[in-house]
Amino acid sequence: MKISIIFHSVCGNTYLMAKDFYDCLKKQGKEVSLYRVKDDDLEKWMNIFPVAKEYFDEINNIPVAGPEVMLESEHIIIGSPTYFGNVSSEMKAYMDGASIFWIEGKLVGKKLTAFTSSSNSEGGGDLCLQAINTFAQHMGMISIPIPSNLLTNKSFPAYGFIHYSGGLGDQRPDENIYTAIKKYTEIYI
Amino acid sequence: MKISIIFHSVCGNTYLMAKDFYDCLKKQGKEVSLYRVKDDDLEKWMNIFPVAKEYFDEINNIPVAGPEVMLESEHIIIGSPTYFGNVSSEMKAYMDGASIFWIEGKLVGKKLTAFTSSSNSEGGGDLCLQAINTFAQHMGMISIPIPSNLLTNKSFPAYGFIHYSGGLGDQRPDENIYTAIKKYTEIYI
Amino acid sequence: MKISIIFHSVCGNTYLMAKDFYDCLKKQGKEVSLYRVKDDDLEKWMNIFPVAKEYFDEINNIPVAGPEVMLESEHIIIGSPTYFGNVSSEMKAYMDGASIFWIEGKLVGKKLTAFTSSSNSEGGGDLCLQAINTFAQHMGMISIPIPSNLLTNKSFPAYGFIHYSGGLGDQRPDENIYTAIKKYTEIYI
Amino acid sequence: MKISIIFHSVCGNTYLMAKDFYDCLKKQGKEVSLYRVKDDDLEKWMNIFPVAKEYFDEINNIPVAGPEVMLESEHIIIGSPTYFGNVSSEMKAYMDGASIFWIEGKLVGKKLTAFTSSSNSEGGGDLCLQAINTFAQHMGMISIPIPSNLLTNKSFPAYGFIHYSGGLGDQRPDENIYTAIKKYTEIYI
Repeated sequence: MKISIIFHSVCGNTYLMAKDFYDCLKKQGKEVSLYRVKDDDLEKWMNIFPVAKEYFDEINNIPVAGPEVMLESEHIIIGSPTYFGNVSSEMKAYMDGASIFWIEGKLVGKKLTAFTSSSNSEGGGDLCLQAINTFAQHMGMISIPIPSNLLTNKSFPAYGFIHYSGGLGDQRPDENIYTAIKKYTEIYI
Repeated sequence: MKISIIFHSVCGNTYLMAKDFYDCLKKQGKEVSLYRVKDDDLEKWMNIFPVAKEYFDEINNIPVAGPEVMLESEHIIIGSPTYFGNVSSEMKAYMDGASIFWIEGKLVGKKLTAFTSSSNSEGGGDLCLQAINTFAQHMGMISIPIPSNLLTNKSFPAYGFIHYSGGLGDQRPDENIYTAIKKYTEIYI
Repeated sequence: MKISIIFHSVCGNTYLMAKDFYDCLKKQGKEVSLYRVKDDDLEKWMNIFPVAKEYFDEINNIPVAGPEVMLESEHIIIGSPTYFGNVSSEMKAYMDGASIFWIEGKLVGKKLTAFTSSSNSEGGGDLCLQAINTFAQHMGMISIPIPSNLLTNKSFPAYGFIHYSGGLGDQRPDENIYTAIKKYTEIYI
Repeated sequence: MKISIIFHSVCGNTYLMAKDFYDCLKKQGKEVSLYRVKDDDLEKWMNIFPVAKEYFDEINNIPVAGPEVMLESEHIIIGSPTYFGNVSSEMKAYMDGASIFWIEGKLVGKKLTAFTSSSNSEGGGDLCLQAINTFAQHMGMISIPIPSNLLTNKSFPAYGFIHYSGGLGDQRPDENIYTAIKKYTEIYI
């Protein structure tokens, strides 16, 4: 079973979450690949947001996903920063590219997991996750929610994993989210 | 595998959709039960809306679902009329009753299908279906979307089945929706 | 201008937020009334949730709103606990009662503010607030969002005020939320 | 009061709705401007979708909106095609450009109206309109819903105007939607 992680990241937080998924799945011996979506302004952002410098090279070296990645995968993990209660336009552009599969239902039955990075718990993260899940529904894909009993000491939205990165985007994903992703990937992917 | 259809219906349209599901699944030799949610005002509505008289007796004779119905079922089919872009309060009361299963995640992994009856295509039906799917996510249940290629001549929201019943609620579900439910239940339930 | 605060509260948190609104508006010399929605199980909850005892009497003494409260008010402030990414069924029942105003558009142009109490930042609070705002849209009411620049040190969802009450519901609304509500009511109500 | 209509259109339907708004407001003697959002693939789409040829030149000649258009306007009318229950990535890119106004709340209090073109009533149009309204909320802008009593013989989602363009996108907006936009703009803009 091929698993693909497809993310958009500017300041590095969504990328670090994507890497958490990648590392966990790899250690579990699963066939997993890591992709980013096209973002022509990555270098521009790096010069505007100091925090975006830290992982620029790493992100830039990750292959860009074409729509065929979704076709070839059985479980797709999509991560986007939360911009105004929705995915970023770069992630939406990637999603819109799936229109070639829509009429014939070529993605029907594939599984999906959503994650996002949001400045704080007031930033519309729930709605960003639901925008990813709504895309999945249109493709006939099946979203696998985060169960309430995943961890006893920490909870996540049912809609997907969320990391709060702070107003400057410099609060990095921590051990808690790694533990959660580890357990989720063990059981549900 | 036990399948349960749980609906709320006042004017009869959501009930007729529920019966379409029931009849299709029964003919396919599957183990299926039909339940309504508690509605103390059913008789009151019948006296207000002429169209509500037609199926009052039939609806009234269907057993009322308790929360244990969800626990005992592997696939749950939930139908509610669309009231202001959301489920009816009667259906929400049924959903809220699932709180006893939430902490321990007792419904995790069960499958869900949503359907609704809405006055017209401008009535917020999409959002009612998503309210059902959001409930499912909180319970760790997996919503099975309606694929774009289910039928070639008729389409439904990815989020679930919808029937437009007109301003007076007297346009009944027709052969088209029966055909769609027949094919969906054959493949996905 | 008549302002009405209409809330549903079990453990007291949504009630305390409602009181924050009431106290702020009263001090500003505005004409404001406080109502709860009907909840026949209030006493039952008190015996199940220890935290629900603390404000039971205070809540129980507040008058129950009929639908006419919305008709008579120019700005309506609605607060509900978040239950599974949506309002409580008790609040939904109150909303459904507004159907008598819908066809003739009798609530069109009135203003609305939403607030909620949610166990934690992973509890679907955003979606509960949007369920209130969606109801407002169906009634032709105008939701007044929480602007990003309301306070410099604290942020809230654009969709309404949210308080995180913890897993046991015993973390009470603090000074921060009072300050935010104070400033919002001064400027926008 | 400056009013700006900002749209994205590929097959011409959202453009025709935008023109309906423009024509109505102009006839009412109001100060209104028409803009499109940047779409580098407009020519590519024209060669893929036959229906996109018809209005390509007209659309192409309309000035592209920069973010300052929102700053200078008091009422902003945003229209996007519905792509998978959300706005198009081109419209999302325009919205993301408003981030420069977000922190200081420079768009707070401005008014917004949403509209969309969707293939059929099963295409997620409600959710696309809500994606526009959610963006408005994050900016502190006030969405003006479509009241239930706007017209007696035709209804629209409370969330904004919708036109169903058919599977091939060639069913053009008709007299009904013009009449609705005419009445809405007379009363609410």
